[in-house]
Amino acid sequence: MEQNFLVELISKMQTPPIAVCLVSGGLDSCVTAAIAIKTCRPAFLHVNYGQLTEQRELKAFYSIADFFGVKDRLIVDISHLKAIGGSALTDPGIPVPLDSHGRPGIPITYVPFRNTHLLAIAVSWAEVIGARYIFIGATEVDSSGYPDCRETYFRAFNSLIKEGTRPETKIEVITPIIRYTKRQVVEEGLRLAAPLHLTWSCYKNEDKACGRCDSCVLRLKGFKSCGQTDPIEYVEYGGRT
Amino acid sequence: MEQNFLVELISKMQTPPIAVCLVSGGLDSCVTAAIAIKTCRPAFLHVNYGQLTEQRELKAFYSIADFFGVKDRLIVDISHLKAIGGSALTDPGIPVPLDSHGRPGIPITYVPFRNTHLLAIAVSWAEVIGARYIFIGATEVDSSGYPDCRETYFRAFNSLIKEGTRPETKIEVITPIIRYTKRQVVEEGLRLAAPLHLTWSCYKNEDKACGRCDSCVLRLKGFKSCGQTDPIEYVEYGGRT
Repeated sequence: MEQNFLVELISKMQTPPIAVCLVSGGLDSCVTAAIAIKTCRPAFLHVNYGQLTEQRELKAFYSIADFFGVKDRLIVDISHLKAIGGSALTDPGIPVPLDSHGRPGIPITYVPFRNTHLLAIAVSWAEVIGARYIFIGATEVDSSGYPDCRETYFRAFNSLIKEGTRPETKIEVITPIIRYTKRQVVEEGLRLAAPLHLTWSCYKNEDKACGRCDSCVLRLKGFKSCGQTDPIEYVEYGGRT
Repeated sequence: MEQNFLVELISKMQTPPIAVCLVSGGLDSCVTAAIAIKTCRPAFLHVNYGQLTEQRELKAFYSIADFFGVKDRLIVDISHLKAIGGSALTDPGIPVPLDSHGRPGIPITYVPFRNTHLLAIAVSWAEVIGARYIFIGATEVDSSGYPDCRETYFRAFNSLIKEGTRPETKIEVITPIIRYTKRQVVEEGLRLAAPLHLTWSCYKNEDKACGRCDSCVLRLKGFKSCGQTDPIEYVEYGGRT
């Protein structure tokens, strides 16, 4: 796969390049960070965008950064996405749907154009600290169907970076798990001994995961499909999987 | 010109579409807003990004919005660009260069990837309020040479919007003055009776414009070249033009 080829290529460089890793605190970004760390000097970026479980995700971010011993950290608040609204993740007036995974169409948890905000911050930071890569844990195959999580979106974004930065700047967004199923994400995480027990995926709760929102359903499916038990606590774990 | 053709086309629509107008408070965005208002229902967006003259620009934004009677307003703070730094406009440790206009290369006032942040906010807001267009007053011909102010950048951004939003969403970035010289910007502003006296362009001062930073030099050149006097106050107006 093209993305794996890139990771391979980076590993052959003499001085490890700097990579900005977008670390939400979730499963996918944790595994992606573990992949980046194999070959790059990581700088961890976390973005609060006014999502309901912001505090829990931030806690997960700190735990993961501590686990990997990453000192370069940037935490950015873009809670104007909450003011703009339009998503169940940022507008408390729109309920987070339960048992809706797999329905056709773009889910109501889609935060309009969110990844462009995250990547814009990553690119600005990367250009200032001299990072060569930006790692983001987007997955397309087994995902919630967000338009800004698809390979075509990231290709368009890489073209935008070329047009919108200094001519000497070379920054590339890498999406190493974009073609992974959730099962493969879990397997890769286990293989790399990534701290999956420190991650948080639930869209709804901050104490015990609900087990029913799209994000929990996908995560549980990932663990179950490779015969593993998810190490985090669920409200109704077992009953729903 | 392609952009003028689009403005022409919009004017033929029966129900005026909503347009998000990026209004910094400067000359170019004021004239661009005046163009948008001819054909669209405007929604004004202003972004503070930790620039030195933020308060003065915000004041200009309010004055321009009041002048045009625009009620839909969104003011967003992304002062993390100040924390990221890398520009004389956001880092007080880097002096704003004087008398440097026309030097080759990307100026130190370039804020890394700034326009992507502004446009990402505009697109998210546009998608939620159902806006069809985003007007931005970028100019390429007589500009400071920022990479994210060029036509190729905006073309790449329009491709990104298509990839990163809902399939039914149709949002397009319009840059009506991108091929205008500063002279043409001033002429168009005067023709449309845009409130040029309310605008603020200086990178350095917040009371009287310095007349020497790149932005002042370009603005003064624009007025002088069409035989007009700039209606705002300068510290050394006359001595430098």
